[in-house]
Amino acid sequence: MAAAITSREQDYSQWYNDLILKGGLADYSAVRGCMVIKPYGFALWENMRDQLDRMFKETGHVNAYFPLFIPKSFLSKEAAHVEGFAKECAVVTHYRLKNDPNGGGVVVDPEAKLEEELIVRPTSETIIWNTYKDWIQSYRDLPILVNQWANVVRWEMRTRLFLRTAEFLWQEGHTAHATAQEAVEETRKMLDVYAQFAEEWMAVPVIKGVKTANERFAGAEDTYCIEALMQDGKALQAGTSHFLGQNFAKAFDVKFSNKENELEYVWATSWGVSTRLIGGLVMAHSDDQGLILPPKIAPLQVVIVPIHKGEEQLNAITEKVNVLMSELKALGVRVKYDNSDNARPGWKFAEHELKGVPVRIAIGGRDLENGTAEVARRDEKTKATLSMDGLAQHIHQLLSDIQQNMFNKAKAYRDSHITKVDTWEEFVEALETKGGFVSAHWDGTAETEEEIKTKTKATIRCIPLNNEQEEGKCVLTGKPSKERVLFALAY
Amino acid sequence: MAAAITSREQDYSQWYNDLILKGGLADYSAVRGCMVIKPYGFALWENMRDQLDRMFKETGHVNAYFPLFIPKSFLSKEAAHVEGFAKECAVVTHYRLKNDPNGGGVVVDPEAKLEEELIVRPTSETIIWNTYKDWIQSYRDLPILVNQWANVVRWEMRTRLFLRTAEFLWQEGHTAHATAQEAVEETRKMLDVYAQFAEEWMAVPVIKGVKTANERFAGAEDTYCIEALMQDGKALQAGTSHFLGQNFAKAFDVKFSNKENELEYVWATSWGVSTRLIGGLVMAHSDDQGLILPPKIAPLQVVIVPIHKGEEQLNAITEKVNVLMSELKALGVRVKYDNSDNARPGWKFAEHELKGVPVRIAIGGRDLENGTAEVARRDEKTKATLSMDGLAQHIHQLLSDIQQNMFNKAKAYRDSHITKVDTWEEFVEALETKGGFVSAHWDGTAETEEEIKTKTKATIRCIPLNNEQEEGKCVLTGKPSKERVLFALAY
Ligand SMILES: [Zn+2]
Ligand SMILES: [Zn+2]
Repeated sequence: MAAAITSREQDYSQWYNDLILKGGLADYSAVRGCMVIKPYGFALWENMRDQLDRMFKETGHVNAYFPLFIPKSFLSKEAAHVEGFAKECAVVTHYRLKNDPNGGGVVVDPEAKLEEELIVRPTSETIIWNTYKDWIQSYRDLPILVNQWANVVRWEMRTRLFLRTAEFLWQEGHTAHATAQEAVEETRKMLDVYAQFAEEWMAVPVIKGVKTANERFAGAEDTYCIEALMQDGKALQAGTSHFLGQNFAKAFDVKFSNKENELEYVWATSWGVSTRLIGGLVMAHSDDQGLILPPKIAPLQVVIVPIHKGEEQLNAITEKVNVLMSELKALGVRVKYDNSDNARPGWKFAEHELKGVPVRIAIGGRDLENGTAEVARRDEKTKATLSMDGLAQHIHQLLSDIQQNMFNKAKAYRDSHITKVDTWEEFVEALETKGGFVSAHWDGTAETEEEIKTKTKATIRCIPLNNEQEEGKCVLTGKPSKERVLFALAY
Repeated sequence: MAAAITSREQDYSQWYNDLILKGGLADYSAVRGCMVIKPYGFALWENMRDQLDRMFKETGHVNAYFPLFIPKSFLSKEAAHVEGFAKECAVVTHYRLKNDPNGGGVVVDPEAKLEEELIVRPTSETIIWNTYKDWIQSYRDLPILVNQWANVVRWEMRTRLFLRTAEFLWQEGHTAHATAQEAVEETRKMLDVYAQFAEEWMAVPVIKGVKTANERFAGAEDTYCIEALMQDGKALQAGTSHFLGQNFAKAFDVKFSNKENELEYVWATSWGVSTRLIGGLVMAHSDDQGLILPPKIAPLQVVIVPIHKGEEQLNAITEKVNVLMSELKALGVRVKYDNSDNARPGWKFAEHELKGVPVRIAIGGRDLENGTAEVARRDEKTKATLSMDGLAQHIHQLLSDIQQNMFNKAKAYRDSHITKVDTWEEFVEALETKGGFVSAHWDGTAETEEEIKTKTKATIRCIPLNNEQEEGKCVLTGKPSKERVLFALAY
């Protein structure tokens, strides 16, 4: 459709929506806060999901599926969890509709009221740990390394396509262990998997860290996270991995007999990433012409456009293209020949640019004569005329160069947007003028964290792992601090 | 855990439940009518899903994702559809919980009542056609060939693991076409895909047919189906493909301008299979020792068990096994070495039998001396001592033989349980003594169909495609009939 995109400069937020909607990733739906993931967006998600799934399986995990509904009483069993999740959620109260006796279509049958309301899962710790109670008796039953791909619902008041929707797709890993140490190792291992996926597949550099108590998952002892930086200088939490201690085991009475035949509570982790990643991907890389997708997860990696006068020339081009296509496919490249007669080449170029296809190849009459093709890369918007000899191999290499270049670019941007500050004035100025991560000393109290948030909207994104220990003074209170933490405005 | 299985003879229903529960496929959950799909069952579903997904993509389909919730009013828009689906369903009426002022945990916040109730999708025609309205303007936008993998909820009163659960996983294809003919072709094409999948991958022979008006999907013009036969002589509908005519296009006002620039309503199909297939798979093949899984979709195809005295012998066996394992893996075989010290070989044999692993290889001291291994096939419960030379290649071939043998066996059983009858007495006797499909003349009226169902519980499973035309008289009413239809008791 090659529709006009609002520029980032003009309206960043509208730019983002334009990319999602006009790029064909998603649509609004008739249900408040829920979106439709369109085929192009879903193909992107499939590539991300399949790679994550491979990485989970390589690290010893298996998939399972647990019920969509959670009995209301389950949410109350873990004290912190209920505070975090039992508030804005979809509540099923009835199980039947009937014809309206007054002729107004169908109405809820008041006689079909559930004894106990069911909650559409906002996350599945409770229903899963209620199940694990039946699965775990002895240390021989441990560890349990289960993941679930599922839809979840959180009744968000302000929604954004992909970034914050009432329903979203995600995976949630839920593991059970015999020792705290093993559970902590699992938590860290999955954080590493997420970081590796974000950097190597999404080309998005991330900072690994741990959340402050304030920002912790409801029911966790420790929440680890990966934090990415968007082009408007805001941070985006791209994945979390929680060490849950024995909290859920205690709430659902899940014990195992250890090798000494003593009963102990089981140790837990949970970890998840969601379709929110797509929002982060879009904002990390795209430009005012449209999406820029990393080759490794792009639904389409290469598109070939013929530029011809008449059928005869088209046939000659198609002959060349068929050879190139089969060579590219043999190399595992996802390629499409866009030879539709519905649109002119210029329109097609704009459309593929909008959709972020990493490489575009155009072949015209001159190219036929010279044995060449014009190769354009989406990330740098550069073009080169190249020989058809060995072109497939060249393109294959180019895709890998683009992947690396996109990561390098995003990393250079991110690295240049981590600002060390030592005073409150510097702190505020960095946030207001430059954005990005602000590395500052903090006195370690929830009160100060809250006050900084109230004054500036900035939150502590994380305390980076392997953080340098450094004596300093809190930027707000001047109280002593032993390390810097990363503040940012965030999605 | 090598637990005892109730025999089919003793209690068929309990036999089925034993296989599902003790075979590790699924568990009951804390939510009425919802089940937990355990890792082994989910791995089976993944193999089925992945193959179906490949077949959908090969036939030009793409995946997308639509909202879990459907506004209540949408269900009323298609008259037949509301009758079929708007009755037993999960209704979301509120979007918030709050702390009980009386201290009883959390309660529904009466102030957070939805203006319009949301239904958890029992099927997605309505929300999807409401979306297609925005996607379709011109014949150039057609066809739309979209599939969705999703969870759906139907509030069933009597549930059976996999066969009938309140929540289940499925795929639902929803396509939009410019002509009736193209939509009918799509409907038939997807029926063929289902039949091919059932026969070649699940080793379950199916009869392709069309449903009577009585048994049609609510909102369809024609419902095509594949029907399989279980070992207790009952039929199981294994997949359906619906020609929806213009019903949903009219209900949601979805028109396109054709090449002559005239507005027409769009033609629709929908088609689906679900986790119910797993129930059918289990009942089609298994025996009193446990599951028998077809190699093509079995999570594990080969298990190797060492039978050793002492560590030294185990090491010698393991050395041989490692070579065999890597050869098998190179051939794409899913293999596991069960060398755990927790259980004795006999216990392991029973466990793998229960789980339906197609091939078991045992290697003991004698085998080490002789350069042999004992190979047992699950389908025929036969054993053979074979040379280790070329064993991997042999196993690879054996898996394919087992796949074919399972299909042949199921087909021989099915074919011998299609009984042609011409009188009411024969009809009743065939149903009562032999079970299976009863091929009989029927006068074509819904009344007769209903009366036969009331008298015998048998329903018309389908009118087979390419049915022989044959003059005859209805088994119940004696009225004239032009073809036989297939009756059966059914799941
Ligand atoms: Zn900047
Ligand atoms: Zn029989």
